[in-house]
Amino acid sequence: MKNALIILLVFALAPLAHAATVLSNAHIHTLDPQQPNATAMAWDDDGEIVALGEASALLARYPEAQRIDAGGAVLVPGLIDAHAHLMGLAMALSGVDLVGASSKAEVVQRLQRFAADLPPGEWLRGRGWDQNRWPDTAFPTAADLDAAFPERPVWLERVDGHAGWANSAAMRAVGRDLDGDWQPDGGRIERVDGKASGVFVDGAAVLVDAVVPPPSDALRARALEAALALAARNGLTGLHDMGVSLADLALYRRFADAGKLSLRVTAYADGDAAALAALCAMGPYRHASGRLGMAGVKLYADGALGSRGAALLADYSDDPHNRGLLVTEPEALQTAMVKARECGLQVATHAIGDRGNRIVLDAYQAVLGDAAASNHRWRIEHAQIVAPGDIARFKTLNVIASMQPTHATSDMPWAEARVGAERLFGAYAWQRFIAAGVRLALGSDFPVEQVDPRLGLYAAVSRQDRDGQPTGGWLPGQRLSAGEALRGFTRDAAYAGFAENTVGTLKPGYRADFVLLDGDPLSVAPRAVVDLKVRSTWVDGEAVYRIPAR
Amino acid sequence: MKNALIILLVFALAPLAHAATVLSNAHIHTLDPQQPNATAMAWDDDGEIVALGEASALLARYPEAQRIDAGGAVLVPGLIDAHAHLMGLAMALSGVDLVGASSKAEVVQRLQRFAADLPPGEWLRGRGWDQNRWPDTAFPTAADLDAAFPERPVWLERVDGHAGWANSAAMRAVGRDLDGDWQPDGGRIERVDGKASGVFVDGAAVLVDAVVPPPSDALRARALEAALALAARNGLTGLHDMGVSLADLALYRRFADAGKLSLRVTAYADGDAAALAALCAMGPYRHASGRLGMAGVKLYADGALGSRGAALLADYSDDPHNRGLLVTEPEALQTAMVKARECGLQVATHAIGDRGNRIVLDAYQAVLGDAAASNHRWRIEHAQIVAPGDIARFKTLNVIASMQPTHATSDMPWAEARVGAERLFGAYAWQRFIAAGVRLALGSDFPVEQVDPRLGLYAAVSRQDRDGQPTGGWLPGQRLSAGEALRGFTRDAAYAGFAENTVGTLKPGYRADFVLLDGDPLSVAPRAVVDLKVRSTWVDGEAVYRIPAR
Ligand SMILES: [Zn+2]
Ligand SMILES: [Zn+2]
Repeated sequence: MKNALIILLVFALAPLAHAATVLSNAHIHTLDPQQPNATAMAWDDDGEIVALGEASALLARYPEAQRIDAGGAVLVPGLIDAHAHLMGLAMALSGVDLVGASSKAEVVQRLQRFAADLPPGEWLRGRGWDQNRWPDTAFPTAADLDAAFPERPVWLERVDGHAGWANSAAMRAVGRDLDGDWQPDGGRIERVDGKASGVFVDGAAVLVDAVVPPPSDALRARALEAALALAARNGLTGLHDMGVSLADLALYRRFADAGKLSLRVTAYADGDAAALAALCAMGPYRHASGRLGMAGVKLYADGALGSRGAALLADYSDDPHNRGLLVTEPEALQTAMVKARECGLQVATHAIGDRGNRIVLDAYQAVLGDAAASNHRWRIEHAQIVAPGDIARFKTLNVIASMQPTHATSDMPWAEARVGAERLFGAYAWQRFIAAGVRLALGSDFPVEQVDPRLGLYAAVSRQDRDGQPTGGWLPGQRLSAGEALRGFTRDAAYAGFAENTVGTLKPGYRADFVLLDGDPLSVAPRAVVDLKVRSTWVDGEAVYRIPAR
Repeated sequence: MKNALIILLVFALAPLAHAATVLSNAHIHTLDPQQPNATAMAWDDDGEIVALGEASALLARYPEAQRIDAGGAVLVPGLIDAHAHLMGLAMALSGVDLVGASSKAEVVQRLQRFAADLPPGEWLRGRGWDQNRWPDTAFPTAADLDAAFPERPVWLERVDGHAGWANSAAMRAVGRDLDGDWQPDGGRIERVDGKASGVFVDGAAVLVDAVVPPPSDALRARALEAALALAARNGLTGLHDMGVSLADLALYRRFADAGKLSLRVTAYADGDAAALAALCAMGPYRHASGRLGMAGVKLYADGALGSRGAALLADYSDDPHNRGLLVTEPEALQTAMVKARECGLQVATHAIGDRGNRIVLDAYQAVLGDAAASNHRWRIEHAQIVAPGDIARFKTLNVIASMQPTHATSDMPWAEARVGAERLFGAYAWQRFIAAGVRLALGSDFPVEQVDPRLGLYAAVSRQDRDGQPTGGWLPGQRLSAGEALRGFTRDAAYAGFAENTVGTLKPGYRADFVLLDGDPLSVAPRAVVDLKVRSTWVDGEAVYRIPAR
């Protein structure tokens, strides 16, 4: 009796394999080497994949399932951006987009539309106005905004970022008299008859910037909604959020509680600060929904290449005596890493220059010791310029290279000027990492770059700009194959977030996170990848985005 | 078939009620009104109570269980201190106890014993020396310590707290020349021939205090072990830790991970700081062991009565024009409470004076609004002096009064001087709270008072000092019955920590947390409660303390 009972129990507890949905008529790339392709996929009510194969077999097996005809679309695992800044994107989206407005009236109209459900008192922000596009090309004034916004402060950045346009409420918020004939350092207050008229050029804009209050919770929530919608529209089902504060995590959690977190956020605590202390006290965080977790910390070694802040082993080629800067002293970096290790957390460290990368590799080696051989999955973010001899150390130390293909194509016009031809050997050297056996996780670093992962896939396979320049691609030996690029944005990104057993690949037992595209990223011409249409994006078997019907 | 399977499944999943242990020959007070008494109790391997009753019945039902003969002991639910400071106790225990040492040699001996397993470099702290007990009653010198401790800094507080004794290593750590003839404000450096000799009187002690490093993790861990052992020895199986930092929580978690947290810690985040931010981001914290949780925040309204910091509605009777002070402004208090409410957390606020209590009640009312009728269990800590009209508001607002019986007996010599006879109406007014239908959770506030909950039970039923003074008890109408006192330290303390369905009462399905005593706290004479011996203390069905065999 006891044995019979146990057998029945086991049977009863086994997944009932009740398929809620069968999707068919698709070209499926599973990224599972055991079964790389299929034309149909079934998943259960809980959003877990239960079968992949041919439609007829699946429909016979799950006759009662809801049926979806994919209309011949290409289906790939949901795209995962392995390095992004979700709240950064949200805040970038939290203002009104004024680009292309062809009159002051249109500006006011766009502002009014945006402000309609903005809480009272909240500052209205925007950017992108350009008076040269308007019938009257003179600078606008506060009065142009005051009729529509007598009470709510309005503060709008010019398209080039070199001037701001305030209404009177915003100017009143500045705690000093803006009239007269004085001018701030490095800037100019536009005035009419000695009275500030509303436009603040260059350094004068900080007068207003300084009094803009931090965004309200309501604004942050609304901004996050917009960012999530944009991500879903671009086929993202997950991202690694590189530097999350406790306040950001609290907001994400509220979204996850409410079922509104439409992609999986793998959060990394922002530096050696409050979120890391919280993780150390309470242990890795995982939301019950599976949509949110925090089990790692983002640290910062050096600066960026464009501003010559990336730490180099030798001088900048275009700036003798400058070797860049360290954002964190090596000792403090190691202290934070020791803390992370003791707290059982993953470390992801920003390193761009060859000196920055070496410092991080040295620190990982010192802190991990024998554990370098373990499954720690510590990462270096960017790994843009790496000394040739250091590439193999990523493999030796089991370090993941988290790289952003669009950074290469954004930087290629001036990267050689910064570091010279010789150091380009280890620049954005994707194939050298692969050849050394290093795992690449790919991302965008949005909002520094565009959200769209198709741009990343394109940059990865072409190393060309949108116009196809340079011919053949920049340092073309480092281009990725379409399969390598897709893996970097799916399976290997999942691996870098300790999630390769649930997402990034399509197979039974995994989450039904996927994207339907109107073409095949593995076979179209490189430049056509950018124009692939995302028909729909699915997380946990539910559509989080569908292309609007035409 | 389907139904049969489901029935089998339900049956299989029901607790197997396999008793690991049957304890018999005990006088058990369960505090469960349905079955107030028993002589035997059975629990399973997991530490969950499965049955209470007569030994014969239990042994027949669980013939294979391990048997424990309680030898006629009295068994009560494990005692829960509803207001304590575990790390405060730990740090108080982290120094060497020098009280009663009858020679310098004995001091050195005690120091050496303690230092034997102190990490190198760690400061050796101690307190309680008194040169008047020694053959040579002159002040000691650094040289007396230097032979035994040439390198390790040693810093020892005199029994009265008015002088400190340092060795040369400690004096070297002070970053200034201690020799000469200068003296610090309000203090005196003892010198021999112009050279600092090692004793620092009154204000001079801060010279050394200022350079004592924060305790190392190793020292904190060792101190916590000592505090846990002391708590277990006194019959405590749980406590509410009123003001826990993230660093403290991290240490508790390490202990819980290692199975070394020998009592249940219900932690309250310390003020509106990092721990609260972490809870808001990640949600209430619960360790898988069931021994540690944090789901509330401790706030502070006013100061203490002894130092005339408790906020009163009228002047102190012994200090005209002084009405005490607010530790937190009412507005900031409400802001923190709103945050706690939004984060789904319990609030426990320190309030001692009648003004402090009114401010908190007003704030609870404002912040909870309609939710005051809900199961929020917000608490006021201490509630020592309450305006008569405000006592009923605890009931109206569903607020728990978290009170410390030993505070009443410690304060009774001077409380009337502070507040006058009239205001004593609402002073430590336990019975008035009970009469108003308010739930009392009892605690000690250790290390401000002693750890021993028997002292709390005694103070609660007698309102007398250890010598039985005053006759009949201070404000005797407010004395608790033995049953009320025990309930305050068990069932109702559990209630105040949202744990009344697992601990504080002994019944099937609850945790086997209990204490064996050599007498009955519900029937011995009040003063005999203090002398009851704890024979053993059990948490999750495992002994965490056993009285040493004589
Ligand atoms: Zn970044
Ligand atoms: Zn306290």
